Amino acid sequence: MKHEYNRIDKLTLNELITIAGNNNVYRDKSDLQSYSTDESTMAIPMYPEVVVKPSDVKIVAQILALANRKNIPVTPRGAGTGLSGGCVPLYSGLVLSLEKMNHIKRIDLNNLIAIVEPGVSLNQLDEALNQHNLYYPIHIGDMSATIGGSIATNAGGLNAVKYGVTRNNILGLEAVLTSGKTIHTGGEYIKCTTGYDFTQLLTGSEGTLAVITEIMLKLLPRPVTREMMFIPYNNLQNAIDTVPELLQLKTVPTGIEFIDNDAIKIVEEYMETEVPYHEQPAFLMIIMEGDSYDNVISHFSEIGDICRKHGAVEVLIPDDERAKRKLIDIREKIQPAIKKAGKSDLVDAVVPRSEIARFVYKVKEISRKYGIPVITFGHAGDGNVHLHPICSGIDEIVWTKKMPAVMQEIYKASVALGGTISGEHGIGMEKKQYLSLAMDKEKIRLMKEIKMIFDPNNILNPGKIFDL
Amino acid sequence: MKHEYNRIDKLTLNELITIAGNNNVYRDKSDLQSYSTDESTMAIPMYPEVVVKPSDVKIVAQILALANRKNIPVTPRGAGTGLSGGCVPLYSGLVLSLEKMNHIKRIDLNNLIAIVEPGVSLNQLDEALNQHNLYYPIHIGDMSATIGGSIATNAGGLNAVKYGVTRNNILGLEAVLTSGKTIHTGGEYIKCTTGYDFTQLLTGSEGTLAVITEIMLKLLPRPVTREMMFIPYNNLQNAIDTVPELLQLKTVPTGIEFIDNDAIKIVEEYMETEVPYHEQPAFLMIIMEGDSYDNVISHFSEIGDICRKHGAVEVLIPDDERAKRKLIDIREKIQPAIKKAGKSDLVDAVVPRSEIARFVYKVKEISRKYGIPVITFGHAGDGNVHLHPICSGIDEIVWTKKMPAVMQEIYKASVALGGTISGEHGIGMEKKQYLSLAMDKEKIRLMKEIKMIFDPNNILNPGKIFDL
Repeated sequence: MKHEYNRIDKLTLNELITIAGNNNVYRDKSDLQSYSTDESTMAIPMYPEVVVKPSDVKIVAQILALANRKNIPVTPRGAGTGLSGGCVPLYSGLVLSLEKMNHIKRIDLNNLIAIVEPGVSLNQLDEALNQHNLYYPIHIGDMSATIGGSIATNAGGLNAVKYGVTRNNILGLEAVLTSGKTIHTGGEYIKCTTGYDFTQLLTGSEGTLAVITEIMLKLLPRPVTREMMFIPYNNLQNAIDTVPELLQLKTVPTGIEFIDNDAIKIVEEYMETEVPYHEQPAFLMIIMEGDSYDNVISHFSEIGDICRKHGAVEVLIPDDERAKRKLIDIREKIQPAIKKAGKSDLVDAVVPRSEIARFVYKVKEISRKYGIPVITFGHAGDGNVHLHPICSGIDEIVWTKKMPAVMQEIYKASVALGGTISGEHGIGMEKKQYLSLAMDKEKIRLMKEIKMIFDPNNILNPGKIFDL
Repeated sequence: MKHEYNRIDKLTLNELITIAGNNNVYRDKSDLQSYSTDESTMAIPMYPEVVVKPSDVKIVAQILALANRKNIPVTPRGAGTGLSGGCVPLYSGLVLSLEKMNHIKRIDLNNLIAIVEPGVSLNQLDEALNQHNLYYPIHIGDMSATIGGSIATNAGGLNAVKYGVTRNNILGLEAVLTSGKTIHTGGEYIKCTTGYDFTQLLTGSEGTLAVITEIMLKLLPRPVTREMMFIPYNNLQNAIDTVPELLQLKTVPTGIEFIDNDAIKIVEEYMETEVPYHEQPAFLMIIMEGDSYDNVISHFSEIGDICRKHGAVEVLIPDDERAKRKLIDIREKIQPAIKKAGKSDLVDAVVPRSEIARFVYKVKEISRKYGIPVITFGHAGDGNVHLHPICSGIDEIVWTKKMPAVMQEIYKASVALGGTISGEHGIGMEKKQYLSLAMDKEKIRLMKEIKMIFDPNNILNPGKIFDL
């Protein structure tokens, strides 16, 4: 399949300006730089030729039709908070930033549905819903991410134990194909068996099939309170072994996170604070939502008993907002702390939740073998593990050279344990080389053929997930 | 696209016998008759040439490869409880009944996952899970349906308000393509962003893309108690207007059903019983699960107040198991009661939940226009309405002649209100002629091209959902 694209010539540029308006077409070097990469630490930046910021679906349709006709690659982009290089314009061309399509079009109190444009951020949505006492339960590490981007990567986050992932919380989409044709999928209803489910097919397709221009989200009543527990363990296996019993509780926790000692150390340094029981090798953080503080706390006593039974050293429940905020910060600052500490990779993998400890031990074994420290933490309740190989005590060139072999072994281990290579970050460009570890040839073939149906000229986010 | 298939000749039959074993290949007329239709009242039965009942995935793979090579249509079949003619072998050929693949392979208490074969019935699964205090929340009208069939149609049922539909409760599949190749989708984890989601693509594809041979289901802790309320209203609009407020409760009901007066009358006759307040035009039935009877009943008092505020005539809560059973029967016996009462059609449609009353009024208007009574009931909490045009007070030939126009108008009305033409029954062969009302050309084109990728010779359940 061709990877030869045309450059954006003067004529095409003028057409883009006519379509999108002069003030929505960007070509300054500083602008192009801002759209050359995402938050992944390993992606090599690539400058687009032009950044276009459409303001509505009709403009998106015209841009795609033009790009398709002129054989120009188009990379859709949300807030650029991705961690797999999914919105890096690998073949340059045009970055289609949806940031100006950031309107919440409707919050339907009768049907508990929100209709939003793709550039709306998760934070922005949450603030708007808060006014109506409603809730969209996807809570990810960086809430400045856009809804469009979260759908492209099927974002998971902290609350997946209770609420599932993005694909479980969206009802319909409007999307534009590279032909310039617009399709509408799903609708304002829970049940639908009317042909193949395009909402689900587009969710998690990382912008390779169509550009999402509108989203219909399922809303929930907003929980009154959100509380958390912090539980140090004297070994990781005990922490992980606690999880199945927690999942069988009648009132399931919203999230169950684990953090290893290396992550705690690095976040202590970053936050200039001391984490209680920081000498312990593993920690669980349990988040629970409910109707009232008292109600949640009553569940905590049962949960505390379960944790102690499984060898927890202590069970800590923050008793004021400040203490709670500090706990949330510990979890949320791990990633920035690691990033700040020096060169590192930020990736995720998935295993069945009972296999997390085994997987982490295997990762530590690989880490020792290559002399590359790997910090681990993540979502014990859903099996999604975050892995951060760091460049510490090793030359950067040597580190970079070793990394593909390290990651290959780590991903192999996750697949061998019944898992896969990405739970929420996506394949993007960073994990493309490892895809065949997780997907057999037949599925990759089917996927490529589906891509060809939607985008026969391969102009939409080319080189992501797979090479055609 | 061709609809010319080969007959199963002697040689092919012998090959089938060699593959599946003599006692798993059926050709007696009485056998073929049993596999000629499903529970839909309008589907015209079609005898297959042969029924094969494979016992494992390898046999399924060999059968599909053989049929593909010999150009013989294959219609996969679960328990035959479908309502859209989805498993009627429209082009005769081979019915592939999965009924002997009915083993629960594993119930994983640590990961809260069940691995089952497609022929396991929902009842059978529920009994097995009950022993472990676990729960698979899909509860449909006929629990003798198989898990395989419920995935093919993305079954919804009574509990969708709280738990969503089938596609929200499955984690992975094993499926065989017509090439004979087996693919594995998803896995024993909640989060996955590793390429396009084939689990979701196959769910609801009505056996047109692949034959599902194993299913990975997400399990939940089993609720301790399941209680219900029965609430007569003096008009339907009031009943429907109650729903949004119920959905905003912190503890959301498991199911919210509505029943019209015609349905109550027909079920009274069928059950030879009297339904309280049977003279009222509309009823809500609210189902709620919880940790304890007292806990659920405490929510009922709040719900009762909301219902009364919206004009409920009375709020009835059955006070013993017998009374509860009677209520469940009223709801569950509507369909058999209608079927027994004479010629009728049993279909479903979907609208946004706030539009149900408007939709039902429109249906009643169409009903009057054509002189064909239409009984309505269904899932007020998720927008899925069941419609039963009955042949009463009208000549059967005239009725049959009028029906396509009646259904066309009904489906048009559901789409005009922002809904679609099937929420849980599927398109099958019965709704195929109405698909273009609900799906634009571009989506139908994409769907057909996806079908061609999976099944280039169109041998798998041909003539369902669409004609190629």
